[in-house]
Amino acid sequence: MDDNSSGSDVLYSSQLLQTLDYSNAVTSPSKLAKHLVLRPLRCDDYSRGFLDLLSQLTQVGDIDEKLFNERFKQMKNNGNYYVTVVEDVTTSRVICSATLFTEYKFIHNAAMRGRIEDVVVDGEYRGHGLGLLIIETLKLMARSLDCYKLTLDCRDEMIEWYSRLGFIAVPTRSNMLTIRFDD
Amino acid sequence: MDDNSSGSDVLYSSQLLQTLDYSNAVTSPSKLAKHLVLRPLRCDDYSRGFLDLLSQLTQVGDIDEKLFNERFKQMKNNGNYYVTVVEDVTTSRVICSATLFTEYKFIHNAAMRGRIEDVVVDGEYRGHGLGLLIIETLKLMARSLDCYKLTLDCRDEMIEWYSRLGFIAVPTRSNMLTIRFDD
Repeated sequence: MDDNSSGSDVLYSSQLLQTLDYSNAVTSPSKLAKHLVLRPLRCDDYSRGFLDLLSQLTQVGDIDEKLFNERFKQMKNNGNYYVTVVEDVTTSRVICSATLFTEYKFIHNAAMRGRIEDVVVDGEYRGHGLGLLIIETLKLMARSLDCYKLTLDCRDEMIEWYSRLGFIAVPTRSNMLTIRFDD
Repeated sequence: MDDNSSGSDVLYSSQLLQTLDYSNAVTSPSKLAKHLVLRPLRCDDYSRGFLDLLSQLTQVGDIDEKLFNERFKQMKNNGNYYVTVVEDVTTSRVICSATLFTEYKFIHNAAMRGRIEDVVVDGEYRGHGLGLLIIETLKLMARSLDCYKLTLDCRDEMIEWYSRLGFIAVPTRSNMLTIRFDD
């Protein structure tokens, strides 16, 4: 879990993960099988199938290593992106990922709002609680980063699943509207 | 509209506003009354009632000028925040505001997603198309900044209003879920 254990650049300090208190959480990293490691995204996860994993979620497109590295650096320099992954160290593949990012506000005493984005578990690893673990982890991180609230957008069929983790569709005010520019 | 016209720091270059093409938009700044000016947020809008305006939207809290300046600088240094306002220059008050911010993605060819947040029109200025103007402006900015999509969260009663501007509640996938940490 050391930031330089792989000789690679990490998106955020893994210390943030190590200090989370899972005592009231529905799961914790201690329940992970030994060959699975929860950690921040690393720049060299490009070669560990990170984009293949994202392609199970949505269209990724043709991202070469240079473009990946540029985007990674932008996120890292920005300082508000906490892409968190699970790696299967027996295969050196990233098999679960979710992003927390934090948004600056003037409202609520110049607060931070947390957002969860791009949640995906590899099809071969579903049903073992990895989704619960990564969302619970991002919840604890958002709280630890002093977010006043944490939100995510989801499909109808995921509402019940997220409700187990405390996410609520607040009546009359839980609509996410969209304009696409790429259609 | 010059960035230094008030001797004040602006959140983003007003050139971005000046280059927008409203020819296919439902409204444009040319329809604004002469005493109303559309422009980026300025650091000295603290003294023009910007926070009073936000308090018509939600809880703002006790933000002194120092804290305001710090948050303004964080947003400016971040580079992804486009808080846009309308000032009534006869009263030197900010009477309309909305925020566009852009989020880095790996998906969709390492794209940007735009988000609209914290939309508010002063109660005394409602019904004159300022809301339409500011949202149309942020839409054009998001497109100009190469966002692949633009989203916002809203209450049920605003869905129809936003639909006039092209925002759609995509069936089965338009839910915004929340956890509050400050309750």
